[in-house]
Amino acid sequence: MKVVVVGGVAGGLTCASNIKRMNKDIEVVVFEKGVDVSYGACGMPYNLLDLEKPVESLYALSLQEIREKRGIDYRLKHEVIGVDFDNKSVTVRNGDKEFEENYDVLVIATGARGNKIPIFEGNDDSFYFKTLEDLRKVKSYLKENDVKKVCLVGAGYVNLEVAEVLKEKGVDVFILEKMDYILPQFCDEVREKVYSKLKEKGIDLFLGVDITAKEKGVVRTNKGDFNADMFIISAGVTPNSELFDIKKGAKGAIVTDRYMQTSRKDVYAVGDVTLAYNRVIDDFVYFPLGTTANKQGRVAAYNIVNGNRLEFYGIVQTATFKLFEYTVATTGLSEYQMENLGIDFEKTVVTTHTRGAYPGGGKVTVVMYHDKKNRKILGAQMVGEDVVAKRIDIIATAISNNMKIDEFAWVDLSYSPPFAPVWDPVLTCAQKALRK
Amino acid sequence: MKVVVVGGVAGGLTCASNIKRMNKDIEVVVFEKGVDVSYGACGMPYNLLDLEKPVESLYALSLQEIREKRGIDYRLKHEVIGVDFDNKSVTVRNGDKEFEENYDVLVIATGARGNKIPIFEGNDDSFYFKTLEDLRKVKSYLKENDVKKVCLVGAGYVNLEVAEVLKEKGVDVFILEKMDYILPQFCDEVREKVYSKLKEKGIDLFLGVDITAKEKGVVRTNKGDFNADMFIISAGVTPNSELFDIKKGAKGAIVTDRYMQTSRKDVYAVGDVTLAYNRVIDDFVYFPLGTTANKQGRVAAYNIVNGNRLEFYGIVQTATFKLFEYTVATTGLSEYQMENLGIDFEKTVVTTHTRGAYPGGGKVTVVMYHDKKNRKILGAQMVGEDVVAKRIDIIATAISNNMKIDEFAWVDLSYSPPFAPVWDPVLTCAQKALRK
Repeated sequence: MKVVVVGGVAGGLTCASNIKRMNKDIEVVVFEKGVDVSYGACGMPYNLLDLEKPVESLYALSLQEIREKRGIDYRLKHEVIGVDFDNKSVTVRNGDKEFEENYDVLVIATGARGNKIPIFEGNDDSFYFKTLEDLRKVKSYLKENDVKKVCLVGAGYVNLEVAEVLKEKGVDVFILEKMDYILPQFCDEVREKVYSKLKEKGIDLFLGVDITAKEKGVVRTNKGDFNADMFIISAGVTPNSELFDIKKGAKGAIVTDRYMQTSRKDVYAVGDVTLAYNRVIDDFVYFPLGTTANKQGRVAAYNIVNGNRLEFYGIVQTATFKLFEYTVATTGLSEYQMENLGIDFEKTVVTTHTRGAYPGGGKVTVVMYHDKKNRKILGAQMVGEDVVAKRIDIIATAISNNMKIDEFAWVDLSYSPPFAPVWDPVLTCAQKALRK
Repeated sequence: MKVVVVGGVAGGLTCASNIKRMNKDIEVVVFEKGVDVSYGACGMPYNLLDLEKPVESLYALSLQEIREKRGIDYRLKHEVIGVDFDNKSVTVRNGDKEFEENYDVLVIATGARGNKIPIFEGNDDSFYFKTLEDLRKVKSYLKENDVKKVCLVGAGYVNLEVAEVLKEKGVDVFILEKMDYILPQFCDEVREKVYSKLKEKGIDLFLGVDITAKEKGVVRTNKGDFNADMFIISAGVTPNSELFDIKKGAKGAIVTDRYMQTSRKDVYAVGDVTLAYNRVIDDFVYFPLGTTANKQGRVAAYNIVNGNRLEFYGIVQTATFKLFEYTVATTGLSEYQMENLGIDFEKTVVTTHTRGAYPGGGKVTVVMYHDKKNRKILGAQMVGEDVVAKRIDIIATAISNNMKIDEFAWVDLSYSPPFAPVWDPVLTCAQKALRK
C-alpha cells in the first residue's frame, strides 16, 4: 500500500509517523510545499523571546530523523497542484518540475493559511505571523531594525501572545481590531479582565478599526492614523481546501466522518483544513488547533492501517492562552453558540482564591454554563493568576462525559494548601450553580 | 427542629452552617471539646513557616461570625461524654459542669485523633501534630528553644510537609519510620522519586525503625540512638467513635449510608470519624481528608433539612502533597488495593516534560492503571516539578465517570506552550497504555 500525504506540518506528519509505526511496510510519501519540516506553530510567539534562537528549534524532528528513523519519504518544496480522484493520483510541482504520483490512500493535511489584508501587500514593514517562514522574516526585521513600536493587526490569541512577548522585550505595542470586541468565544466577564490587563500593561487596544490605507510607518483608519515601526497581521485563517473537489462545510473546511474519511473513497483529511467533530453538540465545527490536528492524524493513521474502526473521540472546544500574569481558558460552547442553538442555559460566575493557607497563588474567575433542562455542563471559561489551563481540563473531562452540574459539584478533587482551597474554585462555581 | 452537632472542626461546622443557610429556623447547637473554632488543619505545616504568625489565622471563621452571622449556637470546651439514642439526648461536660441536651437530629463529627506512642509521654521535647493546640505547642517550643535538629516520627504526608518547612527554615531534619517503606498508597516509581528528593535535600530517612526508649534529647531504637532537640510525632489516626454504640467498620470508623445517616435513626455522621463511599469499588473505605469531611457535611445538612434525597457522590481517593520542587499526587486505587481485590490491572508509566516550547516547567512522571478486562481507568499517580495536583484532578474526573482508557486518551485538553505539550503528559500516558 502507498499513502500520499499532502502537507507535512501537524496532522500530516503525525498521520505519516503513526502509519509507519503500525506498519513499516506501507510506503508513505509526504509532500510539503514549504521549506520547513513539521514545527510547533503554537510556540512561535515564544520563540520571539530570544532573537538569536533559531526558528528551527521549533522543528518537531529533523528531516533526517523523519526520513531515516521514521522511514517516511518526506519531500520539502513539493506542492500538490492537482488531484485526480478517479485515477488516484496527484500532480506535484517541485521547482520547475511537475510530475504525477499515484496513491492507494490520500491524506489531505494542507492546514489553513492566514487571511491576507491586501492593503498591506508590498509593504516591507508589514508581516504575517502564521508560518515559520513568517517568523523568520519577523525576527530578521526585529534584529536588523531599531523597532521601538509595533502595531498588531487583529486581536486573536496569537497576537495577544505576541503583544506580551514584545512588551516584555521592551517594545511598545498597540493593537487594532476590526470588531467592536475581542475573543468572541469568551463572555463579558473574562473579556473585561483581558481589557484591564492590557491597559495595566500599557498596551492600547483600539476596537472597531477599519484600515483604509497603508503607507510606510503608518496605517490610516476610520479612527485616525497610527504610526509604528512594524506591523504584524493575524487576521483569522482560511482552510487550504480549494484544490480538492470534495464535500466541504463551514468556512470551506473539508467534511469528514469520525474515521477522518472524506466524501471521496480512500481519501482522508486531518487538521486545520477539516471540520472537527464536537462532542457537545454532536456536530462538526471549524475550530482549528494543533492539538486536534495531532489527534486526528493518529486516528486517520489507525484507520488507514486497520480499516475504519477508530472513531475520533471529538473536541469540546478547549483552548487556552497566556497573557502576562493571567491564563485565559475556555472549554465547551460559547454563549454565542448556545444562543444560536436555542439552548436555555444557566450561567454561574465566581471569583475566588486559587490556594489555601499557603503563600502565593492568586484569584481566578470561573464561569460555568449548564443546560437548565437536562442539567448537563455545556461550557466553562476561566481567567486567573494561578493554575488555570489544567483546571479548565477538569471541566473539559466532565463535559466529555456529559456530566451534570449536580454530579460535578461533588467530584473528589485534590486538596492541599499550596494547590487549592478545600473546595477547588471549579467546585465552588458548581456548588453555587446548584443553589440557583 | 433542633440539631446537635458533636465536634465543630471541618465536617461539623460545614454541616451546621449549611443547615442554617437552608433553613434559619432550625436550631443548631455545636459542641466542640477543644478551645479552637473550626480551622484548616491541612494548613498547619505551612503555618510553621512564620513563627510569629498566629495559629488562629487558620480559623475558618471567628466564634463571633459563627454565632452572629451564621446563627449557630457554637460552644467551645463542651465535650459530649454520653449519648442516649432512645431518649435522643447527649450528656455534655463543660469544665466542672455536666448537663443533658436533647436533640431531634444528632450529627457525629468527632473526627479522628493522632495515634499516641506511649514511650513519648511525659517528654517535654516531644510533640504531636494533629490539632491546632499541638501546633501552638510546637511553635512555642521552636520560639523558646534553640532547635537545631528535629526528629520526625512517622513519614506520612503531614510529616513530609513539616520536614520541608523546617528544612526551608534552616533546621536540620530527619525521619524515623516504622515500616520498611513510606507512602503505601503509592507505587515504587513515585516512592523512589520521593526518596531521591529527601536525599537531595539532606533529609535522612530511616526505615524499619522500632523505637525502644526515649530519654531527653534522644530516642533509642533497633537501628541505634538518634539525638535531636525536638521530636514531632505523626503516626496515623484513629476515629473518635468509641462513645457511640452504633454500626462501625474498618478501623472502628462509623458506617453511614450515602445520605450520611448512621445505623441509628436521626443520627448522621460526617468527616474523619466515618468511612467514606468510594465510587471506584462501590464500597466504603477509611480515607480521612478535610475535603471529604466538607462535602459530607454539606450532604448531611441537605438531607437533614430536606429528607434523605441527596446521596454523597463519593470519593475516588484523590490526595496530594508538596515536597520541595515536587508535587506528589494520587487518585483512584492503589496497587495494594487492586491486588487485594483481585483486579487484573495494566500499569503504564511515562516521564515527560510538562510544557511545550516555553521556558521553565519540568518533568513529570505519570502512572496510570486500567482494568485489563473492562478497560476502565482504576487509578493514577504523579510526581513532578510543575502543575501536578490539577493534572491528577483531570484523571479523578475521568475515574468518577467510569471512563475507559480508550476514551480518556483522546480528551480535548488545553494546549499552549506555557502550560502543556501538544499531548498533555496524562494523554501521553494514556496513549502509551493503548499501544499495549
